[in-house]
Amino acid sequence: MNVLVIGGDGYCGWATSLYLSSRGHEVTIADSLVRRDWDREHGLDSLVPIASTRRRIDEWLRLTGRTIGFAAIDVTDYDALCATISAAEPDAIVHFGQQRSAPFSMIDREHAVRTHLNNTVGNMNVLWALRERAPDAHLVKLGTMGEYGTPNIDVEEGFITIEHNGRTDTLPFPKQPGSFYHLTKVSDSDQILFACRAWNLRATDLNQGIVYGTRTEQTTLSAALANRYDYDHIFGTVLNRFCVQAALGHALTVYGSGGQTRSFLDIRDTVRCIEIAVTNPVRPGEYRVFNQFTEMFGIGGLAERVAKVAAAMGAEVPIAHVRNPRTERESHYYNCVNTNLRALGLDPTPLSDETIAGLIELAREHRDRVDLRLIPPRVEWRDGAPVCGGTSAVA
Amino acid sequence: MNVLVIGGDGYCGWATSLYLSSRGHEVTIADSLVRRDWDREHGLDSLVPIASTRRRIDEWLRLTGRTIGFAAIDVTDYDALCATISAAEPDAIVHFGQQRSAPFSMIDREHAVRTHLNNTVGNMNVLWALRERAPDAHLVKLGTMGEYGTPNIDVEEGFITIEHNGRTDTLPFPKQPGSFYHLTKVSDSDQILFACRAWNLRATDLNQGIVYGTRTEQTTLSAALANRYDYDHIFGTVLNRFCVQAALGHALTVYGSGGQTRSFLDIRDTVRCIEIAVTNPVRPGEYRVFNQFTEMFGIGGLAERVAKVAAAMGAEVPIAHVRNPRTERESHYYNCVNTNLRALGLDPTPLSDETIAGLIELAREHRDRVDLRLIPPRVEWRDGAPVCGGTSAVA
Repeated sequence: MNVLVIGGDGYCGWATSLYLSSRGHEVTIADSLVRRDWDREHGLDSLVPIASTRRRIDEWLRLTGRTIGFAAIDVTDYDALCATISAAEPDAIVHFGQQRSAPFSMIDREHAVRTHLNNTVGNMNVLWALRERAPDAHLVKLGTMGEYGTPNIDVEEGFITIEHNGRTDTLPFPKQPGSFYHLTKVSDSDQILFACRAWNLRATDLNQGIVYGTRTEQTTLSAALANRYDYDHIFGTVLNRFCVQAALGHALTVYGSGGQTRSFLDIRDTVRCIEIAVTNPVRPGEYRVFNQFTEMFGIGGLAERVAKVAAAMGAEVPIAHVRNPRTERESHYYNCVNTNLRALGLDPTPLSDETIAGLIELAREHRDRVDLRLIPPRVEWRDGAPVCGGTSAVA
Repeated sequence: MNVLVIGGDGYCGWATSLYLSSRGHEVTIADSLVRRDWDREHGLDSLVPIASTRRRIDEWLRLTGRTIGFAAIDVTDYDALCATISAAEPDAIVHFGQQRSAPFSMIDREHAVRTHLNNTVGNMNVLWALRERAPDAHLVKLGTMGEYGTPNIDVEEGFITIEHNGRTDTLPFPKQPGSFYHLTKVSDSDQILFACRAWNLRATDLNQGIVYGTRTEQTTLSAALANRYDYDHIFGTVLNRFCVQAALGHALTVYGSGGQTRSFLDIRDTVRCIEIAVTNPVRPGEYRVFNQFTEMFGIGGLAERVAKVAAAMGAEVPIAHVRNPRTERESHYYNCVNTNLRALGLDPTPLSDETIAGLIELAREHRDRVDLRLIPPRVEWRDGAPVCGGTSAVA
């Protein structure tokens, strides 16, 4: 299939682009590379060095003979987006091209608005461009499990049947997003549902859990194909960060009590989920939601597990509970349904001690690149504590 | 109380500003007047001539001795908004300052994005400015009953208690917005709920029905205080439009079968509802939702009622069913709760034949100002029919 991957230079996007290409799909990446600018703006860098997009794509061609197209466009530039879609003639558009960090969106008003503009105007542009240029293409959009928050009932996949006063309807599952970033994803979902109903577009909304890992079969073929690995307090996700801390013999920092439970998946499952969605399109007018995760973990338990694996590798690391910078429940019910992707053939990769050990090993290899000052949370949801502003660290 | 009315030059905003001032509150209007630009851009005009904001405010002072402040600022200009809030020191901020037309938001991508930017970036600015400059002020925000769509269950006020798999939670009522305009209101509601929880702000979200009427006790004191009356296909609401059609002996145009049921209220109740919300603030951290309407009517039945009143006034007008430009159910269950405002003292003004006759009479007085070509719907939700673009009619 012809697949346009918007945001194909990013963490999940790059791994997905390579996987889809390896599976025989014709892939075009559309990416403004603004994510690399945000790293520079905030003085961050991937733990694992990453090559330029052009170099990555050239290396992939050299090693596999497979071509990946590249359009250096911004999804907020509607004319450029339309031109790219017309040229790519995609069967599916996979849309990763969004600012994906909750702390980034909470730094200050400017970052909140920037996140909102990038994400929701970009999403509107994708919908209008689909309508105008490729109404039959299947939109595969990345949402987040964080859209749901932590309700006291089971989280269904996108919709819930509600009985109320003797009547029944199946309605969008109520959302309780916990940051301006999460708010953009909820807004995107609402827009996509509307566009499917009003314009007969077809879309799959993937409410993805927290992704861990960095290496896939494809990204490990060569250093020039390496995927990014964020461990900092803005873009780093929790398990990846714990492994970096363990590699350096540093305390694993848990936000608050650690009683928060979240959904997780291995990046090797992310890429498979995307292919499942792409190769199983919905019918015109249908809006489908998959909860894209494989396991649920408590954050405190996850820290203990990493500490145990680290100990077996000769590193005794303590677990430190730091003040929670977010406003979130630290003790709550959490149970989410994820049967749709399994029904379509996903064979989950459960978190193993080997995976954790591999991440710790990878972090040890690159330990000279770790800046421990980038790990402690500096963006406060509530109190407007000193933040890593954009003024001091522009490269 | 000190009340800052953002969008205080508009249809509901102006009537509310005068009412609050007449009730002894200190009112400051913040308005960019962009609504008047949109009229010019699309070749529209109020049926009833309206004076400039300055002239309106001067006239109010002359007649009543009451001062209304005016800041000609745009809510999307954060610095100007902050300065205005700091100067006004409001106890409450009533936020009407949004693009409020569903058809406007569906004209094309540019209008959809413009609506989104104006409304949701404006809303974000209000929240951040409250946090920064007036964290104790009570936000009274105008939403719309259209956020809920037409679910097959009773619509509660903002939240619904859901039992699911043996567990229970009270969650945000599922929303099904039917245009890019309605999508912005849903996004606003989500943002406000988040800001109340994360930042301890206090807010009342008013999900308002379709407003009809134009005159209040205050706006009728002088021609210079007159409120706007939109009858065109973009900003005109259904009952006001029917009355203009009846006044001109024109067929009442019902979109589709007319089986759509909606929530309504008289503008004289709008202004009372706002005062009730303002004078009954919620506690810090609380997000409260009122469904702000008084009656539910089927559109077809409403047309019949207007036709009957018109007939009694000597005008036999037919009812014409035109192709529905929107994508919406024309036959559906609809029952919405609206007990919160009544519990706080709202004494509703039910729609009377006298009110309809008064609107028809008003339209007859201004019949030379009616441009019938502005009435038929020209914005198609689905098919991208020819639209009243912004290119031909700029004054």
